[in-house]
Amino acid sequence: MIVITSPHIAEERIAEIVRHIEKSGVQAHVSHGKDRTVIGIIGRAEPSLAEHIRSMQGVENVIKISKSYKLASREFHPDDTIIEVKGVRIGGDDLVVMGGPCAVETPEQIDEIARLVKEAGGQVLRGGAFKPRTGPYSFQGIGVEGLKWMKEAGDKYGLLTITEVMAPEFVDICAEYADIMQVGTRNMQNFDLLRKLGTIQNPVLLKRGFSSTYDEWLNAAEYILAGGNPNVMLCERGIRTFETYTRNTFDLAAVPVIQELSHLPVIADPSHATGRRELVERMTKASVAAGANGLIIEMHTDPDNSATGDGVQSLFPDQFANLLKELEQLAPLCGKQFNTEKAPAEAFATWRK
Amino acid sequence: MIVITSPHIAEERIAEIVRHIEKSGVQAHVSHGKDRTVIGIIGRAEPSLAEHIRSMQGVENVIKISKSYKLASREFHPDDTIIEVKGVRIGGDDLVVMGGPCAVETPEQIDEIARLVKEAGGQVLRGGAFKPRTGPYSFQGIGVEGLKWMKEAGDKYGLLTITEVMAPEFVDICAEYADIMQVGTRNMQNFDLLRKLGTIQNPVLLKRGFSSTYDEWLNAAEYILAGGNPNVMLCERGIRTFETYTRNTFDLAAVPVIQELSHLPVIADPSHATGRRELVERMTKASVAAGANGLIIEMHTDPDNSATGDGVQSLFPDQFANLLKELEQLAPLCGKQFNTEKAPAEAFATWRK
Amino acid sequence: MIVITSPHIAEERIAEIVRHIEKSGVQAHVSHGKDRTVIGIIGRAEPSLAEHIRSMQGVENVIKISKSYKLASREFHPDDTIIEVKGVRIGGDDLVVMGGPCAVETPEQIDEIARLVKEAGGQVLRGGAFKPRTGPYSFQGIGVEGLKWMKEAGDKYGLLTITEVMAPEFVDICAEYADIMQVGTRNMQNFDLLRKLGTIQNPVLLKRGFSSTYDEWLNAAEYILAGGNPNVMLCERGIRTFETYTRNTFDLAAVPVIQELSHLPVIADPSHATGRRELVERMTKASVAAGANGLIIEMHTDPDNSATGDGVQSLFPDQFANLLKELEQLAPLCGKQFNTEKAPAEAFATWRK
Amino acid sequence: MIVITSPHIAEERIAEIVRHIEKSGVQAHVSHGKDRTVIGIIGRAEPSLAEHIRSMQGVENVIKISKSYKLASREFHPDDTIIEVKGVRIGGDDLVVMGGPCAVETPEQIDEIARLVKEAGGQVLRGGAFKPRTGPYSFQGIGVEGLKWMKEAGDKYGLLTITEVMAPEFVDICAEYADIMQVGTRNMQNFDLLRKLGTIQNPVLLKRGFSSTYDEWLNAAEYILAGGNPNVMLCERGIRTFETYTRNTFDLAAVPVIQELSHLPVIADPSHATGRRELVERMTKASVAAGANGLIIEMHTDPDNSATGDGVQSLFPDQFANLLKELEQLAPLCGKQFNTEKAPAEAFATWRK
Repeated sequence: MIVITSPHIAEERIAEIVRHIEKSGVQAHVSHGKDRTVIGIIGRAEPSLAEHIRSMQGVENVIKISKSYKLASREFHPDDTIIEVKGVRIGGDDLVVMGGPCAVETPEQIDEIARLVKEAGGQVLRGGAFKPRTGPYSFQGIGVEGLKWMKEAGDKYGLLTITEVMAPEFVDICAEYADIMQVGTRNMQNFDLLRKLGTIQNPVLLKRGFSSTYDEWLNAAEYILAGGNPNVMLCERGIRTFETYTRNTFDLAAVPVIQELSHLPVIADPSHATGRRELVERMTKASVAAGANGLIIEMHTDPDNSATGDGVQSLFPDQFANLLKELEQLAPLCGKQFNTEKAPAEAFATWRK
Repeated sequence: MIVITSPHIAEERIAEIVRHIEKSGVQAHVSHGKDRTVIGIIGRAEPSLAEHIRSMQGVENVIKISKSYKLASREFHPDDTIIEVKGVRIGGDDLVVMGGPCAVETPEQIDEIARLVKEAGGQVLRGGAFKPRTGPYSFQGIGVEGLKWMKEAGDKYGLLTITEVMAPEFVDICAEYADIMQVGTRNMQNFDLLRKLGTIQNPVLLKRGFSSTYDEWLNAAEYILAGGNPNVMLCERGIRTFETYTRNTFDLAAVPVIQELSHLPVIADPSHATGRRELVERMTKASVAAGANGLIIEMHTDPDNSATGDGVQSLFPDQFANLLKELEQLAPLCGKQFNTEKAPAEAFATWRK
Repeated sequence: MIVITSPHIAEERIAEIVRHIEKSGVQAHVSHGKDRTVIGIIGRAEPSLAEHIRSMQGVENVIKISKSYKLASREFHPDDTIIEVKGVRIGGDDLVVMGGPCAVETPEQIDEIARLVKEAGGQVLRGGAFKPRTGPYSFQGIGVEGLKWMKEAGDKYGLLTITEVMAPEFVDICAEYADIMQVGTRNMQNFDLLRKLGTIQNPVLLKRGFSSTYDEWLNAAEYILAGGNPNVMLCERGIRTFETYTRNTFDLAAVPVIQELSHLPVIADPSHATGRRELVERMTKASVAAGANGLIIEMHTDPDNSATGDGVQSLFPDQFANLLKELEQLAPLCGKQFNTEKAPAEAFATWRK
Repeated sequence: MIVITSPHIAEERIAEIVRHIEKSGVQAHVSHGKDRTVIGIIGRAEPSLAEHIRSMQGVENVIKISKSYKLASREFHPDDTIIEVKGVRIGGDDLVVMGGPCAVETPEQIDEIARLVKEAGGQVLRGGAFKPRTGPYSFQGIGVEGLKWMKEAGDKYGLLTITEVMAPEFVDICAEYADIMQVGTRNMQNFDLLRKLGTIQNPVLLKRGFSSTYDEWLNAAEYILAGGNPNVMLCERGIRTFETYTRNTFDLAAVPVIQELSHLPVIADPSHATGRRELVERMTKASVAAGANGLIIEMHTDPDNSATGDGVQSLFPDQFANLLKELEQLAPLCGKQFNTEKAPAEAFATWRK
C-alpha cells in the first residue's frame, strides 16, 4: 500500500500520518519527492487501513498494491483448480459443455432436451427452475418440481445438472437435486447467498455481475472459498455498456485475464452475452480460442413457443450439435480436449459403477 | 407493443405471427410499409409475449410502448405519494434531511451524532449496523446491538432512524428497531428481499442499482408495491461509468425524470454519489435545485478514525450544520420547504403525544 | 511517478530498471516491500518514461502522481481565470448565460431570438452555422452566411456570439465573425483543431468529449493553452453511459471537480446533457447550485418547426425568460451574481464606447 | 418510422401531427391503441423528419425502423466487399495480417521489422508517422520522413503499408506513400477528414470510436462511401467501459454483428483492445474464430526501448511468428484461408510485374 500526500504539506502532518500507520502494526517508509511525499507501507495491513488513511487530511491518494482476495489468487494457488464431479473434470485442459433451456417447462421438454444435449456430446444439463425477473409480473419459474424433472433427465442420460439458486434459503433444496449451483449476475454481490454457498461442497458457477470489475468478481469468489467450498468456477456472461444492439457486451478478454489472476476455471456464456441466436456459434468458437474451460449455451427444441423470454438466444438442437462437432476440431488447436463421442459417456458410466 | 418484421417476409409468415399474437387474447393491427410490415398490438399483453414474439423467425424487433411497471407509475397514481412517519412527511413539497455515520460504532458515537443531526435541523438519523462489503475480510458491521443504540439515540433526540437491511431474514429485526428500511445498491434486484419488504409497512428507501436503468429501478419498486407496501421512496446514489475520479457518477437528472415517471419521493445521496467530502456540499445544493424530496448525507464527528471505509466522504458536524442552514434559504426557491428550527421538533413532539 | 515491481523479482532486474530510470535524468528511490519493490521517481520525468517503464519485464504497474497537464492546473495558476470579452466577464463570481437556437436558419429567426435572449437577461447568443452530423444525409448547417446574420444580431442587441468551429480551416473565418469559438464533443481530441485554436486569442469553449475523463479533458485544454491562447472555458454537456432515457448522463459533479483541479471557468449545458425540454429548467438551477460559472441553453421561437434536430430540447422563449428570473434569485445563494436587468446592457454599452 | 403519441391526446393534435408528416411527402397510417395512438410513416422520410416530429407536443417517442446508412448496409450490397490492393485481397474468405510497430522510429528499425513481418507471413506493414496524443507534451511522431522509410521497407519486402492519417490536410501526402489510410478512434467522427477520404481511392481502415455504437460507426463509413470511395474496412479496437484492467474492452461480437449489418470487411485489433502483451495471442485467435477478415497486431524488436508508449502491448518477433503459424491451422476451421508461406509473396510478385 502506498500513500501519496498532497503537495507541500507540513512535516508534522506527515509525522501524524506515519504515527497512524504504525499504530496498525505495519511499517511506514517515507520518500520525499519534489512536491509530494510518498509513504510506503510494509507488511500486511488490515483492509480498512487504506480507507482510514485516505480520509485523513493531507492525503491525496492511497494505492493498494496487494490484491484484496487471497484464496482465489493465482499467487496463492499456482496450479489450475480442477473440479471433478461424477467423472466430469472442469478446469485444466478439459473443455466442458453445458446446454439446455433457459427454464424448465415440463418433464417431457426437459427429457427431450437432455437427450439432445447428451447426443450432441454435452456433459451438463442447464435449466432454471426459479427465475430472476426484472418485473414482478413475469414468469418466475416452476419451482422445486422442475428440479426433480431435471434430476431425472440428468440421471437417465448421464448428464450433470446445473441450476440457478436465488437466495440462501433455497441452497439446500437446490443442492439436493442439482450437481452445480449457479449464482446469477444480479446476485454476484448477494453476500448472504455467497456465504451460504461456502458451507456446501457442490461446485458453484459464479456469474460475473453485469457491471462488476474483475476485482469485485474475484472478491465475490473469495467469499465462497473463505467459507470452505473450494469448488468455484467463474462465468463471463457479458457486461453492460453503452452499446445496446447486443443484450450485453461480451468481455471475452476476461477469460485470459481471470486465468492469469486466478486458478479457478472460467466458463463462457455466449447466449446471455450476446442475446442473439445468430451470434452464438461464432462467439462460442471465439470463447474456446480465448481459452475458456467451458461453455454454457442455451438450446431449445421449440424456442418460438418457449415459456420464457430467452428463446431468441437459444440454439436449435441441430445448430447445437453441429457447433459441438466443430469444437471437437477447434479445441486441440487451443490447448483443450473435447470429444463428442466417447469420453463423457464413459466417464459417467465409470462414475456410476 | 409494436412488432416490426424483417424486410420482405412472406405473407404466410406475417399471418403466423398474427395468429400467435391473437392466441394471447389481444388484437393485432397490421400496416404494410415499403420494406417492413408493422404489427400493432392492442390490449394489455402478458409481459412475456414481447419476448416470445421477438424470438419468432421473421421478427426484427419488438417495441414495448406501455411501461412494465404499473403501481409505481405516475399514470396510475397522478398525485405525489407523501409518506408520513411519526409526523415527518416525505414527499410533496417537504424537504427531508437524513444524516449520520456510515456505520454505527459505539453507543456514545451514535448518541453524539444524533444530537448533532437534530441540532442542525435534520429529521432522520442514518447508520449501518450490517454492512455489505466487497471482500469477505472487511468490517461487516456491529449487528443487532447497533440497531438498539440507534433506536435509543433516535428516541432521545426525536429523530426517525434509517438502516440498511441486507437479506430477507433480517427484515423483521430491522423493522422492529428502525423506522425506515434501506435497500442498498447491490441488492436492488435481490427479488426475495424486495418481496419480503412488500409484506411490511415500514417505509423503504430503495437505492438505485449502480448500473440499473430507470426502468429496472421502477420495476424493483413495483415488487415492493405489488406486495402491499405503498411506502417506497427512491434514492439516486450515483451510477458506474468510465469516470473513476469520483466514486460514482451522480446522475442528478434522475431526480426530475423519476418524479415525472413516478409519484414516489426521490431522495439524493451526494455522499456515495461523489465519494469525496469536498464535493458533498455543492452537490447537496444541486440536488435540492434539481427537485429532490430529501437528502441522505454522511456525517461523522471523527472521520479520520472512523471504523469504516467511508470517512473520506463524511462531512464534519459544522459543515453539516452550515449546509442545512443554506438549504433553509435555497429550498423555497426550489418549491420546497425546510426549516432547521421549529418544524421537526414540533412535529415530532406532536407525534409523541 | 511510482514503479511497482512484480513479486519476488531478482535484484539485477531491479537494478536494470533503476538504470533505465536514471538514464532519463531523474532520480530513483528504491523501497523493498514484503513481496514487491517500489521505486519512486524524483524529478520531472518525460511523459513517455512511464510508458517505457511499464513495458519492461518485471514491472507490474506504474502510477503517475503528478498530472500530465500543467498550464490548466490549479497548482500552476491558483486564482480563477476570468475571461473578459467586450465587458462581459466569464469566470470568478459572475454568472454568464448563453442562449439561442441549435442552428441559425434565417436572418429573421436569429434576429428575433437575439432580441429575446437580450430581453431575458442573457449575455451571449449561441447558434450553429456549421453542424456536425452523425450521418452524411442530415442538414449540415447554413455556412458562413449564418455567421454574418448572427454577428449582425449580436451587434444590434448587444450580445456576444458563440458558434461551433469544426475544423482547423474554419477557425479564421469563425473568429472573424463570432466572439467565442466552441469545440464540439466529437472534436475534443481533434488535436489539429486544438492547436490551431491555440494560435488565436478568441475565447474557446471546449466541450467535454462524450466519453472523456476529466484528465483527458484538461489535457485537451492544455493543447490550446500551450499554443498561447489563455482564454479557455470548459463545458460539461453530459457523458455516454448505459442509461439511454436521457440523451446523455449529466455529470454535474464535473463542475466542482474541474474547478478544484483547474482555474478555468466551467459552463454547464443542460440542453444537450438531458436532451429533453422538460428537464432543462431544473437541471439549469442544479448547475448553478453546483457552482457553474455559466450556462449554455437552447431556446427557439418555434421548436416544432425548427430546421434541425434539437427542437425537442429547446426551451420556449417564455420558459427561458422565467428561468433567468429564477436564476437572479438563486445565484447569490450559490456565490454568484446575475442580474437580468441592468448589468449586461450597461457593460456592453460601456464596451461599445 | 413509427410515431408514438402521449396517452389520451386530442384528435386534433393527432391530425396536426399527421398533417406535418404528409407535408414531407410521405404517408401516415394511424392506429388507435388503448391509451396511445401509433402513426406509421410509409415511404422514405428525410432523416431530419424524425427529429422534427419528436419535438412536437403530444409525441412521446419516434422509432426509426430503417437504418440511417445505406451504402454501408448489407441490404444495399448483399455480397461481401473484397478490397484488392497489389494482389492482396481483404474481405471474403481471405485472412489478412497487418503487423508492425506503434510508431516508425528509424529507417533501420522499420526495415528490420518489415523483414520480420514478411518472414512470419504477414501481408501489411503498419507504423505510425504522425501520432495522436492525449497531452501536448508527448512524442507526436516523426512525420513525413517516416512515411518514406516505411514505403521503402514495404517495397523492399513486398508488403502493403498502412498508416494513420490525422487531419484532412495530411490525406494527400499519406496517400502518396502508404497503401491503406487508417482513421484513428478519436477521429471516427471527424467529418471533414471522412469527407476528404471519400475523394481518394486508397482503402481506408476506419477504427471504431472508443465509445461509438455500431450505428454511428456505420454512419461514419457512409460518409466515406458517399464521397465516392468504396474501399472501406472497419476495425474493432475495443471500447471504453467501467473495467480498467484492460486498456479497453474488446467487443469481439462486433465482428459478426457488423458482418451481418454490412458488406464491408472487419479487422480486429487485439493489441489496442487489450493493451497487454500477454493477452494478445489468445485474443487474436478469438478474433479469427469470431470471423474477422483480418488482424492488425503490434510487433516490435525491442519494446522495452521503443520511443512510444505502446511497447507494453507489442509482441516480440518470435511470438508474432508463432502466432501466425497457429492461425494457419485455425483459419480453415473458421471459414478463412491463411498461408504463411507462399500466397502473399506470390501475389505480390504477380502484382509487381
